Amino acid sequence: MRELVVGAAQLGPIARDEPRESAVGRMIALLEDAAARGCRLVVFPELALTTFFPRWYTEDQAEIDAWFETDMPNAATRPLFERAKSLGVGFYLGYAELTIEDGRTRHYNTAILVNAGGRIIKRYRKVHLPGHAENEPWRAFQHLEKRYFEPGESFFEPVNAFGGEIALAICNDRRWPEIYREAALRGAEMVLLGYNTPVHYPPAPEHDHLQGFHNHLVMQAGAYQNGMWVVGVAKAGREEGCDLIGESCIIAPTGEIVALCSTLGDELITAPCDFDRCAEIRSNVFNFALHRRPQLYPLLSADDPSSLQG
Amino acid sequence: MRELVVGAAQLGPIARDEPRESAVGRMIALLEDAAARGCRLVVFPELALTTFFPRWYTEDQAEIDAWFETDMPNAATRPLFERAKSLGVGFYLGYAELTIEDGRTRHYNTAILVNAGGRIIKRYRKVHLPGHAENEPWRAFQHLEKRYFEPGESFFEPVNAFGGEIALAICNDRRWPEIYREAALRGAEMVLLGYNTPVHYPPAPEHDHLQGFHNHLVMQAGAYQNGMWVVGVAKAGREEGCDLIGESCIIAPTGEIVALCSTLGDELITAPCDFDRCAEIRSNVFNFALHRRPQLYPLLSADDPSSLQG
Repeated sequence: MRELVVGAAQLGPIARDEPRESAVGRMIALLEDAAARGCRLVVFPELALTTFFPRWYTEDQAEIDAWFETDMPNAATRPLFERAKSLGVGFYLGYAELTIEDGRTRHYNTAILVNAGGRIIKRYRKVHLPGHAENEPWRAFQHLEKRYFEPGESFFEPVNAFGGEIALAICNDRRWPEIYREAALRGAEMVLLGYNTPVHYPPAPEHDHLQGFHNHLVMQAGAYQNGMWVVGVAKAGREEGCDLIGESCIIAPTGEIVALCSTLGDELITAPCDFDRCAEIRSNVFNFALHRRPQLYPLLSADDPSSLQG
Repeated sequence: MRELVVGAAQLGPIARDEPRESAVGRMIALLEDAAARGCRLVVFPELALTTFFPRWYTEDQAEIDAWFETDMPNAATRPLFERAKSLGVGFYLGYAELTIEDGRTRHYNTAILVNAGGRIIKRYRKVHLPGHAENEPWRAFQHLEKRYFEPGESFFEPVNAFGGEIALAICNDRRWPEIYREAALRGAEMVLLGYNTPVHYPPAPEHDHLQGFHNHLVMQAGAYQNGMWVVGVAKAGREEGCDLIGESCIIAPTGEIVALCSTLGDELITAPCDFDRCAEIRSNVFNFALHRRPQLYPLLSADDPSSLQG
């Protein structure tokens, strides 16, 4: 048995004018609760330091950049790093990352994994950016991730930490079965992911009532079909007039939801996660080496699937 | 709107000594009911003509071959083909196929799609054979598909029929997210599949109570994540002392189960399936061209994923 008690620390809404220090204070309260309940790893949402700013269109780059972090930790987040270290708890944190690489300014939707010693041991930049790049005034609100971020180029390689092999993903990544399989083929035993998911999806509002169902469906399937733990954590509730789903959860390698948030506010759920349970699935029905037929999946990795089609 | 009324024709158990003619008679009764309810396509289970013989070990090849069909249609199944043609209804039928190809005798777990004119327009040979190849007497019953069949080499290419693009799969195929994605990248709008799934899974009996959940989870995720209709049809009930799950269903491109069997016997469910509804999903949240990142999924198509790992 390799058991890790994990906390999923859902956040309620963060107002546009709520300072990062306030959001960090809320996270520290959840972290302390988690430590008291035996957690050694706590998962916070995507873009957990501010309101979900991609809902607004602006051409003012300075206004956009103000939502980003240029250093991590920084003055606002250092108290979280320090408190976590003093408690011996690691964490996953999503934030907007502004960095200069190869002489160019980059904007990423990023998540980090911090170990119990306060050190960043994994940085992941969101690969599947949803939404659109131009202002679409017909929408009740925008979803401009394709405008404000550039896509990450990370593979879904896990890091050995907390007694297991842990991969990171963010929000819309979770809808894609490819990410769980890539991570599992690389040995992942647990995927951590934060999300901000509006109830209302302007291109297909006839599916709004299914947001909660779809959220769980994709994560439960990813867990079961790869024999992995999945921890999905929302920023939830009515944020600046936009309703975000909650239903943060911890999912076993069987696909069963073993802990579930029941509010749309700040809320902690915990579960003991035994990494050894992955083998129940991965050594049997989803034994990849025995049963997968990759030669019959030529389109999955193809840059241009139509070019390979028979 | 491109609407097709589809029938999922679940079968109850078929006893070891029940002749094919009897199974065919049961299927004709379901087919006639389906035609009366407006169906133009009826889906029957995997290996629908006989009992699920891979549960028994034998080294007597003649005994095995007796479960196979060397021609299709043949004397036993011709009445089904003829009745279907006279009703103007097409069908999916699973059976054990014995054929000679390239000078060698082949055994496949096969499904065919027959059009409303009685012509076989697609043949699919099961790609993901579950189970094992040797006798394992510790099991309450065997699952010798890896012994009695050779794996098919079919891609998941759909055929244009019944007003849409239709792909075939069989039983254990449905657990693999790869098949839905391969089919969808090839334009599939509907996947038809039959199954024989024991409640008891000897290698991990601690999951037996989850068989129904897993059955629906994988098919619903496959439908939603690819914006496709999925029709899954069981041979169900207590067959020669072995309990098989039922819960045959028709699943919309939203992942919602829109029709569900509620018995373990011969039972027909129907639903009007509009192929145009695939676009609600495939043009939006799962717009592959806009959102997939195949360059970051190098392992999915790799013959030996470990050789590519960073």
